[in-house]
Amino acid sequence: MAKITVDLNSDIGESFGLYQIGQDEEVLDFITSANIACGYHAGDHNVMNRTVKLAKDKGAAIGAHPGLPDLAGFGRRIMEVTPEDVYNMVIYQVSSLKGFAAIYNERVNHVKPHGALFNMAAKDPITAEAIAEAVYDIDQSLILYGLAGSELVRAGRKRNLHVAEEVFADRTYQPDGSLTPRSEAGAVIHDPEKAADRVIRMVTEGMVSAADGTELPIKADTVCVHGDGLQALRFVEKLRQVLNDHGVFVKAVTHS
Amino acid sequence: MAKITVDLNSDIGESFGLYQIGQDEEVLDFITSANIACGYHAGDHNVMNRTVKLAKDKGAAIGAHPGLPDLAGFGRRIMEVTPEDVYNMVIYQVSSLKGFAAIYNERVNHVKPHGALFNMAAKDPITAEAIAEAVYDIDQSLILYGLAGSELVRAGRKRNLHVAEEVFADRTYQPDGSLTPRSEAGAVIHDPEKAADRVIRMVTEGMVSAADGTELPIKADTVCVHGDGLQALRFVEKLRQVLNDHGVFVKAVTHS
Amino acid sequence: MAKITVDLNSDIGESFGLYQIGQDEEVLDFITSANIACGYHAGDHNVMNRTVKLAKDKGAAIGAHPGLPDLAGFGRRIMEVTPEDVYNMVIYQVSSLKGFAAIYNERVNHVKPHGALFNMAAKDPITAEAIAEAVYDIDQSLILYGLAGSELVRAGRKRNLHVAEEVFADRTYQPDGSLTPRSEAGAVIHDPEKAADRVIRMVTEGMVSAADGTELPIKADTVCVHGDGLQALRFVEKLRQVLNDHGVFVKAVTHS
Amino acid sequence: MAKITVDLNSDIGESFGLYQIGQDEEVLDFITSANIACGYHAGDHNVMNRTVKLAKDKGAAIGAHPGLPDLAGFGRRIMEVTPEDVYNMVIYQVSSLKGFAAIYNERVNHVKPHGALFNMAAKDPITAEAIAEAVYDIDQSLILYGLAGSELVRAGRKRNLHVAEEVFADRTYQPDGSLTPRSEAGAVIHDPEKAADRVIRMVTEGMVSAADGTELPIKADTVCVHGDGLQALRFVEKLRQVLNDHGVFVKAVTHS
Repeated sequence: MAKITVDLNSDIGESFGLYQIGQDEEVLDFITSANIACGYHAGDHNVMNRTVKLAKDKGAAIGAHPGLPDLAGFGRRIMEVTPEDVYNMVIYQVSSLKGFAAIYNERVNHVKPHGALFNMAAKDPITAEAIAEAVYDIDQSLILYGLAGSELVRAGRKRNLHVAEEVFADRTYQPDGSLTPRSEAGAVIHDPEKAADRVIRMVTEGMVSAADGTELPIKADTVCVHGDGLQALRFVEKLRQVLNDHGVFVKAVTHS
Repeated sequence: MAKITVDLNSDIGESFGLYQIGQDEEVLDFITSANIACGYHAGDHNVMNRTVKLAKDKGAAIGAHPGLPDLAGFGRRIMEVTPEDVYNMVIYQVSSLKGFAAIYNERVNHVKPHGALFNMAAKDPITAEAIAEAVYDIDQSLILYGLAGSELVRAGRKRNLHVAEEVFADRTYQPDGSLTPRSEAGAVIHDPEKAADRVIRMVTEGMVSAADGTELPIKADTVCVHGDGLQALRFVEKLRQVLNDHGVFVKAVTHS
Repeated sequence: MAKITVDLNSDIGESFGLYQIGQDEEVLDFITSANIACGYHAGDHNVMNRTVKLAKDKGAAIGAHPGLPDLAGFGRRIMEVTPEDVYNMVIYQVSSLKGFAAIYNERVNHVKPHGALFNMAAKDPITAEAIAEAVYDIDQSLILYGLAGSELVRAGRKRNLHVAEEVFADRTYQPDGSLTPRSEAGAVIHDPEKAADRVIRMVTEGMVSAADGTELPIKADTVCVHGDGLQALRFVEKLRQVLNDHGVFVKAVTHS
Repeated sequence: MAKITVDLNSDIGESFGLYQIGQDEEVLDFITSANIACGYHAGDHNVMNRTVKLAKDKGAAIGAHPGLPDLAGFGRRIMEVTPEDVYNMVIYQVSSLKGFAAIYNERVNHVKPHGALFNMAAKDPITAEAIAEAVYDIDQSLILYGLAGSELVRAGRKRNLHVAEEVFADRTYQPDGSLTPRSEAGAVIHDPEKAADRVIRMVTEGMVSAADGTELPIKADTVCVHGDGLQALRFVEKLRQVLNDHGVFVKAVTHS
């Protein structure tokens, strides 16, 4: 019987100039895939170099984390962007990260859009297709990360890209498979035990209970975790252990 | 007898968002190498895509034109940057242009630093070596453009890079081979006949008269020309013709 | 009988660094109110200084033209901004322009939001109120410019601000008083005669024919005109003459 | 006998978007003058609003802290800027802060240039005069902070501005009164006792021992202290107490 595997991914390399954010070194001890900011919503060329090196040293797969050109809003604000603009901002950012990976003889393994771009691509097929097209045009072997069941996943498959469906440990789902907006009550799961249990069920059974109790099928190729703060780090550590206890093998998404 | 050849290069792709600058289409009819801005001192991801396509369509060699991160100053203001910062800004910018070239099945042929970065690299060996190291680390077959006789040329040779020495048609030289600063009288040659004659002599004899009359040996692999305004365009057109009349073959710098 | 008056306003000072845009000097010969960019969507501190001086020399009323922080999109892209963010970006930009006006012993007479911020404020009462509150908090005597009949006009009145309702010479209206989106056919009026006639009717009768023929009441305190290109300038010149021929006095909006 | 007084100033409001830096609330408990970033080297319009309110609530004098337009370098990198550019960047930044102060019925009390701009103004009379002219043109009652004995102090006096001479608790001086560059050994004083003793002597005797032992006269109207980290905060707390023990009254610089 094939072993059940899952990837743990986290957004890192989001410092900028003198500004430090996140605990990249610590979270890299627990994750298998690193989504590295590319200078638009966060990160800069110096941070990118350091972060690629750090991810390599810690053995995490290197991924590009392109975002909207909005440092002041950390790429979390929806912007009215054309598909052509989205396509070009993905080409630009992913290519710049490829450059840093190459100087360490590494490859970029995956692409995960950041923040508002991720959310826009989950719901809007045109944005999703612009991203998928850019990823395909850069390198057809890149793995595209998207919200499980989202338009981005569909757009990636349409392009014959290898797609990784992503689930969230600490967020609740709506009956249609979308995330409960943060502005609503019950959007975030604060109990680490409960969050870990949900991940185990998503990974091993492919099911999750939506906020209204509906049972939803869900594909969990990769779990998004956070590295900002001690509590977040402890949760990631615990999650790895619980996954291990359930016989789930934690490893980066690969083509094999 | 080997035919004498020279390259004509020009800075293009320097528009930004709604802001248009330069006459890229027109100047591309006369030049053989295009130095394309990479989003730091000028250009943006949409402009880069369009410009790479345009250069390809017009048959010009595609080059990266990395600059200091200073859009407000168009990359023309000296900034106090560390060698590490210079190295990383070159990796970032050249890699992003490589991405756009690749989607058109093109390669980046050369790298020419822009404005203040070009000037700093002409005089400061540390900045020059940071640039040469970055170019080497990206792709050893990239051709490095530098001011004829400058520190950047020396640094490129030290790295075993193919180096193209660049001369200016409309600028005068000091006895030490540096350009007469624009702030000084006689820095710019306004007479197109005289400018063309000087280029011919630099290309065919490898000599130029410095501002004080000293005869200087100079290597002219490539000539920098401008495309902003009708007068500039007419000069480039004329220069090509004069070069042709003197049996000089105008072509991009290549390894062969 | 009180003389009918109207203001002609135009967006100016939108150059940035080396990038030149618009024909500020020329259009200032015909307009009575200048909306000066404040460094977010366009303009920079040097351009602002020059433009304030130019507007003063030409006798135009000086207005602040705050926009979204999006130079790459020229402030024309909708962004998801909080009311607090809108309030603060208006305080920041208008205050900076007040500084430049003060060094020429001038006052800022009005505030007109730019592009996407203008459009958002026309429809969204929360954005409109954030802008009106900022303008009020800066200086209660500032005149707020908003699309005729829009939420911004309402929000300004609610704050007891002096409001100027703005009409467009070259755009058609929907039966509800909104502008026909540029993406739709018939949004723009290309015939200068027809455009001038519509302005005359809006100013003297307070009526306009909507795209579907509906007769709409409209208040025209100020007319937005453009200064980019020879054709635009000729239209403004013609419009002033036609207004004069109809006995309409063209002057800036003031409190008296 | 007139009581000896001194001001303690610190740079605050240097967060940006999601990026947090410094411990503004804590350091405001000990300082008398707050130098608030204005969005060029650090800070943004939201941070400025919050910081002005915080400084007011804590009773610190509000000062503008204009810097070079270089967020990536935190305004610490020398840039080649023209006097006109310096003048306009000071007008822009100080005016924007004035706007935020005004909504809390507060005034901007002083202006202290930041980082590289501060250092350039200490040595270069042209940069110093551009700053002094801008401050004078904004409001002749603004107090200009400059390195004790520097060109900025001279330029301010020449303009008849009220000038505050600033000393550093944790830095050593050269025999000519300049700060020992950080790149040299012995530039920073790490022993808090020693640093406090030096401040006491500068404030009460107007003397300091240079790095080579030379006794230098120095004027200490204000002392620059830092709020980043627990150690820095403890030093400021201690310094206030030691000043108090020596009968020195700690208060903001004012005209009276």
